[in-house]
Amino acid sequence: MGGTGDEGYGLALRWATAGYQVIIGSRSIDRAHSAAQLITKTAGPNSKVSGMLNDQAAAAAEIVVVTVPFAALIETLKTVKASLTPGKILVNVTVPLETAIGGKPTRTVGLWGGSAGEMASNIVPKGISVVTAFNNVSAEPLSDLAKKVECDVLICGDDRDAKKIVMELVTAIPGARGVDAGPLENSRTVEQITALLVGMNIRYGVHSAGFRVTGIPLA
Amino acid sequence: MGGTGDEGYGLALRWATAGYQVIIGSRSIDRAHSAAQLITKTAGPNSKVSGMLNDQAAAAAEIVVVTVPFAALIETLKTVKASLTPGKILVNVTVPLETAIGGKPTRTVGLWGGSAGEMASNIVPKGISVVTAFNNVSAEPLSDLAKKVECDVLICGDDRDAKKIVMELVTAIPGARGVDAGPLENSRTVEQITALLVGMNIRYGVHSAGFRVTGIPLA
Repeated sequence: MGGTGDEGYGLALRWATAGYQVIIGSRSIDRAHSAAQLITKTAGPNSKVSGMLNDQAAAAAEIVVVTVPFAALIETLKTVKASLTPGKILVNVTVPLETAIGGKPTRTVGLWGGSAGEMASNIVPKGISVVTAFNNVSAEPLSDLAKKVECDVLICGDDRDAKKIVMELVTAIPGARGVDAGPLENSRTVEQITALLVGMNIRYGVHSAGFRVTGIPLA
Repeated sequence: MGGTGDEGYGLALRWATAGYQVIIGSRSIDRAHSAAQLITKTAGPNSKVSGMLNDQAAAAAEIVVVTVPFAALIETLKTVKASLTPGKILVNVTVPLETAIGGKPTRTVGLWGGSAGEMASNIVPKGISVVTAFNNVSAEPLSDLAKKVECDVLICGDDRDAKKIVMELVTAIPGARGVDAGPLENSRTVEQITALLVGMNIRYGVHSAGFRVTGIPLA
């Protein structure tokens, strides 16, 4: 969902390049197809990428990754809800930036449930594991296959198995390292870090501020 | 203030080693003197370290660094308030961990003002620049002069000159790098990162999880 935006495009491109079967979901079937074609062109003829409407994409996928702008998050989740059958994993990448209400990308809005990840978890059916991940990875290095992603991916969720599967999606992106950042409630902090990094991008005149966790045993 | 605790001890030790004149503030003059003696012993006979009661320390210092447990923050700030004459800088290191109300160190409590840094700013007199810094640096590597600190220091504040001065304090700690993390309101996120790192320490069985910012031009 949101695969036609910059972040979704970048993630889809990386996973398609790594050999994953990728379905781009969109509200517009034309835009889904265009994005799928563009990714196929870049990732190569052996990549397995298709485009579908959001609800069809969610029905066909095992792991549903949401990268829509925050203002569209609730609507998108409601659209795909019926397609999310038990056992599927929903990865929420969307961050509640203040831009959703006409504010700044360096701030977030406060959510009743604490975070977009927890909000998503309250909307999707029981039996769906919601995992927070990839929120802090800039679209720019993702979209350029010549670049390594110089950023760790903080993974939050309450289902260990789901987190392990998402960890594999991280490993498929050269340079990215997954870090277990605890329960889903920690999405509160992880999502806010995105706004902090946007501020650093602005202050330091760059496009891909990220971070590496230090002092913990990681591959 | 709080120089008798682990974090305060570690920072004071590093600054004393770098040649700064350091005053340990405490509620107890005996503990202030003991901490000062211990630091002098470790940092060497040329180091300039003394111990005073909190209000006297605040009166004598140009830069007042607060590292007390969160439950003691308001009381400490009220104690030193009268000693904070215009032009001084208050660096708040204290994070509103849930432990202050008997909860977990992996969570924070929500504050009316948004963060401990903003709360501090509302308590101290006008003319005092409050800067958030050092919150994410573990006490353990600070306290061991043989170790480099493998963590960047996120600096938040609304006074550019004060942030520059705090940046110098960062540079005095081998391995640490200061990153301008924007206005004081960004303390909200920076303080929460501490709780996230505490969680990583527990999950990964270490004592000094930290991070390095990537993708921005830093020395």
